[in-house]
Amino acid sequence: MSKKVVIVGGVAGGATTAARLRRLDEKTEIVMIERGEYISFANCGLPYYIGGAIQERDALLVQTVEGMSRKFNMDIRNLSEVTRIDRERKVVEIKNLKTGETYEENYDVLVLSPGASPIKPPIPGINEAEALFTLRNIPDTDKIKAYVDEQQPKKATVIGGGFIGVEMAENLWERGVEVTLVEMADQIMAPIDFEMASILHQHLREKGVNLVLEDGVKTFEKNGKLINLNSGKQIDTDLVILAIGVAPENKLAKDTGLELGLRGAIRVNERLQTTDDSIYAIGDAIEVKDYINGQATHIPLAWPANRQGRIVADHINDIDSKYQGTLGTSIAKVFDMTVAATGNNEKTLKRLGISYDVVHVHPSSHAGYYPGAFPIALKLIFDRETGKIFGAQAVSYDGADKRIDVLATAIKGGMTIFDLPDLELAYAPPYSSAKDPVNMAGYAAKNIAEGLVETVQWHEINDILADGGYLIDVREPIERDMGMIEGSVNIPLGELRERLGEIPTKEVYVYCQVGLRGYLATRILMQAGFKVRNLDGGYKTYS
Amino acid sequence: MSKKVVIVGGVAGGATTAARLRRLDEKTEIVMIERGEYISFANCGLPYYIGGAIQERDALLVQTVEGMSRKFNMDIRNLSEVTRIDRERKVVEIKNLKTGETYEENYDVLVLSPGASPIKPPIPGINEAEALFTLRNIPDTDKIKAYVDEQQPKKATVIGGGFIGVEMAENLWERGVEVTLVEMADQIMAPIDFEMASILHQHLREKGVNLVLEDGVKTFEKNGKLINLNSGKQIDTDLVILAIGVAPENKLAKDTGLELGLRGAIRVNERLQTTDDSIYAIGDAIEVKDYINGQATHIPLAWPANRQGRIVADHINDIDSKYQGTLGTSIAKVFDMTVAATGNNEKTLKRLGISYDVVHVHPSSHAGYYPGAFPIALKLIFDRETGKIFGAQAVSYDGADKRIDVLATAIKGGMTIFDLPDLELAYAPPYSSAKDPVNMAGYAAKNIAEGLVETVQWHEINDILADGGYLIDVREPIERDMGMIEGSVNIPLGELRERLGEIPTKEVYVYCQVGLRGYLATRILMQAGFKVRNLDGGYKTYS
Ligand SMILES: Cc1cc2nc3c(=O)[nH]c(=O)nc-3n(C[C@H](O)[C@H](O)[C@H](O)COP(=O)(O)OP(=O)(O)OC[C@H]3O[C@@H](n4cnc5c(N)ncnc54)[C@H](O)[C@@H]3O)c2cc1C
Ligand SMILES: Cc1cc2nc3c(=O)[nH]c(=O)nc-3n(C[C@H](O)[C@H](O)[C@H](O)COP(=O)(O)OP(=O)(O)OC[C@H]3O[C@@H](n4cnc5c(N)ncnc54)[C@H](O)[C@@H]3O)c2cc1C
Ligand SMILES: CC(C)(COP(=O)(O)OP(=O)(O)OC[C@H]1O[C@@H](n2cnc3c(N)ncnc32)[C@H](O)[C@@H]1OP(=O)(O)O)[C@@H](O)C(=O)NCCC(=O)NCCS
Ligand SMILES: CC(C)(COP(=O)(O)OP(=O)(O)OC[C@H]1O[C@@H](n2cnc3c(N)ncnc32)[C@H](O)[C@@H]1OP(=O)(O)O)[C@@H](O)C(=O)NCCC(=O)NCCS
Ligand SMILES: [Ca+2]
Ligand SMILES: [Ca+2]
Repeated sequence: MSKKVVIVGGVAGGATTAARLRRLDEKTEIVMIERGEYISFANCGLPYYIGGAIQERDALLVQTVEGMSRKFNMDIRNLSEVTRIDRERKVVEIKNLKTGETYEENYDVLVLSPGASPIKPPIPGINEAEALFTLRNIPDTDKIKAYVDEQQPKKATVIGGGFIGVEMAENLWERGVEVTLVEMADQIMAPIDFEMASILHQHLREKGVNLVLEDGVKTFEKNGKLINLNSGKQIDTDLVILAIGVAPENKLAKDTGLELGLRGAIRVNERLQTTDDSIYAIGDAIEVKDYINGQATHIPLAWPANRQGRIVADHINDIDSKYQGTLGTSIAKVFDMTVAATGNNEKTLKRLGISYDVVHVHPSSHAGYYPGAFPIALKLIFDRETGKIFGAQAVSYDGADKRIDVLATAIKGGMTIFDLPDLELAYAPPYSSAKDPVNMAGYAAKNIAEGLVETVQWHEINDILADGGYLIDVREPIERDMGMIEGSVNIPLGELRERLGEIPTKEVYVYCQVGLRGYLATRILMQAGFKVRNLDGGYKTYS
Repeated sequence: MSKKVVIVGGVAGGATTAARLRRLDEKTEIVMIERGEYISFANCGLPYYIGGAIQERDALLVQTVEGMSRKFNMDIRNLSEVTRIDRERKVVEIKNLKTGETYEENYDVLVLSPGASPIKPPIPGINEAEALFTLRNIPDTDKIKAYVDEQQPKKATVIGGGFIGVEMAENLWERGVEVTLVEMADQIMAPIDFEMASILHQHLREKGVNLVLEDGVKTFEKNGKLINLNSGKQIDTDLVILAIGVAPENKLAKDTGLELGLRGAIRVNERLQTTDDSIYAIGDAIEVKDYINGQATHIPLAWPANRQGRIVADHINDIDSKYQGTLGTSIAKVFDMTVAATGNNEKTLKRLGISYDVVHVHPSSHAGYYPGAFPIALKLIFDRETGKIFGAQAVSYDGADKRIDVLATAIKGGMTIFDLPDLELAYAPPYSSAKDPVNMAGYAAKNIAEGLVETVQWHEINDILADGGYLIDVREPIERDMGMIEGSVNIPLGELRERLGEIPTKEVYVYCQVGLRGYLATRILMQAGFKVRNLDGGYKTYS
């Protein structure tokens, strides 16, 4: 007997489940219910349609109700909201939003992929704010785009420096709007750590974005045209985008008594079944296991939603397949730069009390002598005993995406830092170097693990100097003119061997521009009997 | 007691060994002997300096004799050739090419990284050819560049369609020279298979390169200004670049009785020791183990040379480290396109009698709705029983390098096709899709391994039709207008379920544009009781 599967939500997770269900079994009865007008649209493209990089609205509509129904022989009902689940009777209650009529539909299997909704906290004045928008779907997009097209706002304020906030800042800027970006934390882009985000802060400021960190909205005034921040600062604005995060759409699950987890996300097992094994849940609505540390987490991204949708369809058809947890690999374009990350960052590891080591390298995106190369700020976080890779972060004008994908693959392949030098990656001058940046990060990490070098981090150096530490700058004098650490002594690398006698103490710190010459100096000094630490990432990471 | 290490060859392998030796031990006596004037130059950049993309000659010189001597405290002797090895006495004989004087130098350890030299066969007329060049080093480059700058040749002929030949074709074209490229095989770029190379053939022809396949040079006439090909064809030319491959520089090794292997390459063990364990050999001069199939092979690329140099330095310092063999990951820019590959191709597997399966997919380099996306022709070769990945090939205007690096990493991580769907790669519209091309190739391969679809390859379909096979084109009629397989019957995917009755036989073949809709049709037909095969890669791979 063929099954009847009802799917709640017709976009990333839902539509993927439906498509795979049909490919596996022509006889399954598939009913996909979507509250909105559109199914299968490109959520991730929405900011770029507002900004103009994507010109055709139709390009956002990956599948239409008609097209998908026909291609996959399924019953797709848009403008229809599932309002209740009756687990006893295995029926859902559906409200037809065009007619207002409510009816029931029975299921053998129910798949929940309802997504998440933008968080809108009860800030005083928020309900009176006229040009305040959140962005989740096509109607949201239409509203924002119409406002920008028609009202030609001069100033916009984006609240929240996560992916969507930063993408909206860029896209409004592309439209010629003056943008203020307000973020509560001391950095934007939570998946990366502070010193990496600092590169982006500088880039945003260079582009003319008014970046306000460590501040939040206290009240909106004048119908949202005036924003009072916690700091007392005031911002005049024509338009507000609220992008401070999303909350799992858990109402249906909660009302029917399914177990919820972190931040109210629906709890599922490895097969993505909720506590009712006839009901699966996937996508932004669910709690997942962090692939690195095994803890519960909530990672609302498109890859997991797509992957989970396919796994559920497989499992419904008795093909065994487990979801391995989420690594949190993520990426964003930030004006001319790219930021990408995978695995855990320092903040997470600290919170969990996991000890780790870090290297920062700044290799060229491809051979430095071939045009178009840019340094990649590449950070690797690892365990020096086991070599386990906890995570990696990259910021660059070029080539960050590739290196993070390679490292995400290495992590999934169970590789350690000791394996990274052996990654045989594709090299020709336009693409990489004979030692790829990932090899280089591996070498640098391995040198720490094997005791060839000890490092000190960018945030430790000022205290060390204050305590009377002896810091040697091994760069050339001319490089110091462009920026140096106050209190450091200059002995260029090429003169170090001859000038060892000038060093008044046996305990020293060294630094150079990116860490490479500092490492060479460290090797010379160590072998000359000094206790020495190299500033990881050099002046570049420090500054 | 500290060791004395003598290194023969001061570029990729040699200079890397030397640098790492010094980092590991300040006391090692390091003597690096280089025949040429320059050490540590960017071999791989040479074509781009001739073409003009690299404008400064100095950019090619990564390290100078003086700079490197000072930085690493080593004895570097350029314009000095090692002419003989006396293994009994552990000395090398060195000829000073400036003075003509010959002297001896003793060693504890000898490292050979002499590279390879361009093959120059005894073709009649070759020695009289005036403007015939090979390209290996800076003097070669200077000569070619001077000829192009001063003689302003109108026509050039490149013999050999490997990396260097194709790069030279592009770079001469960039200089406004009309280029003919002559290749003996039926395809350029040996690391990939014919149907993948065909995309490049078309691209070269579109650019105006006169591509001559399956032909070779019989004789040169008129001081090299007239080339007679084996086919009888004649080519007038102002300039000839001979780039038909390289042969290991094995004379020293051979004369002193070290064991040689494939194509005369120096045989080494996993620690890169020759049959004399005081003598290591690395780089283009050595035979390596193919990482995929374990056979001896010769892969003259920069990554292996660099990696091996570091391993040797480690081993000399009693740090254990083995060379794992070479995967042969390679890449080249071919005008506006990129070709990249890793592991074994079909040609190699066939030669070795290894059975394999293949999938071709053509996913977008990033979200199709975001500007600048291009399809990637991505080929995966695998074992359907074990899931082992034998190799992968990619050709595209964008994103080929990233996917091959990810797959090379997956191979090194021991991952199979069954792991590829779980690679959590970085997704935002400018970089990828929610299912990355690598995930997609994994899905497609897994579907074959799990019996969800059977495929037929592009080279089999004409025979099948000739034998009366029934081939259904499931594309829309309008797509057929732009090219179709003669003899196929059109039933668009959307109508297939209703039109099953029209199909006169139970054994059918299907195709679409890239293989995706063909797969959907296959699923429908299989479940309706047909025996069906989908044309892998669709019309795109076929045509
Ligand atoms: C502006 C924006 C940019 C983004 N950019 C990226 C990016 O670059 N990279 C990335 O990885 N991710 C990105 N995302 C996140 C990504 O889109 C989501 O992770 C993904 O869509 C989640 O899939 P889902 O199926 O869980 O939810 P959704 O795709 O949101 O689908 C859920 C659907 O369920 C419907 N629904 C909810 N409740 C009901 C109900 N009771 N009855 C009927 N229907 C219901 C909703 O209307 C909604 O259409 C972005 C998201 C947004 C909004
Ligand atoms: C034009 C060109 C483009 C290339 N592009 C790429 C690319 O894009 N990607 C890639 O991976 N690889 C590329 N390569 C290949 C790459 O450069 C080589 O694989 C690499 O340089 C090999 O390193 P090696 O140390 O073995 O040899 P080499 O780097 O060639 O160094 C060998 C040196 O040894 C010296 N020598 C030889 N015999 C003696 C002796 N008896 N005494 C003293 N000195 C001696 C030679 O003069 C030579 O300088 C390219 C090569 C060329 C020529
Ligand atoms: C488009 C959508 C309906 C999914 O449909 P889908 O059919 O699963 O996905 P695709 O169209 O990419 O096709 C993938 C299938 O084609 C197969 N395939 C792809 N190329 C192929 C080829 N050349 N040959 C054979 N099979 C191929 C894959 O194996 C896979 O099939 P499988 O799952 O049975 O293994 C759904 O992803 C969606 O709605 N997306 C838009 C919303 C969204 O994802 N938002 C977030 C990101 S913006
Ligand atoms: C340049 C050349 C001399 C090699 O020198 P090298 O010192 O081994 O290589 P690099 O300068 O890239 O430095 C790599 C070292 O710096 C370390 N390093 C790099 N960045 C670092 C950082 N930010 N912090 C700390 N260490 C760093 C690496 O760990 C590595 O050291 P290790 O081998 O001891 O682990 C040699 O590769 C060469 O001659 N190249 C040109 C020729 C060539 O390769 N041709 C073919 C390609 S065109
Ligand atoms: Ca690049
Ligand atoms: Ca791209």
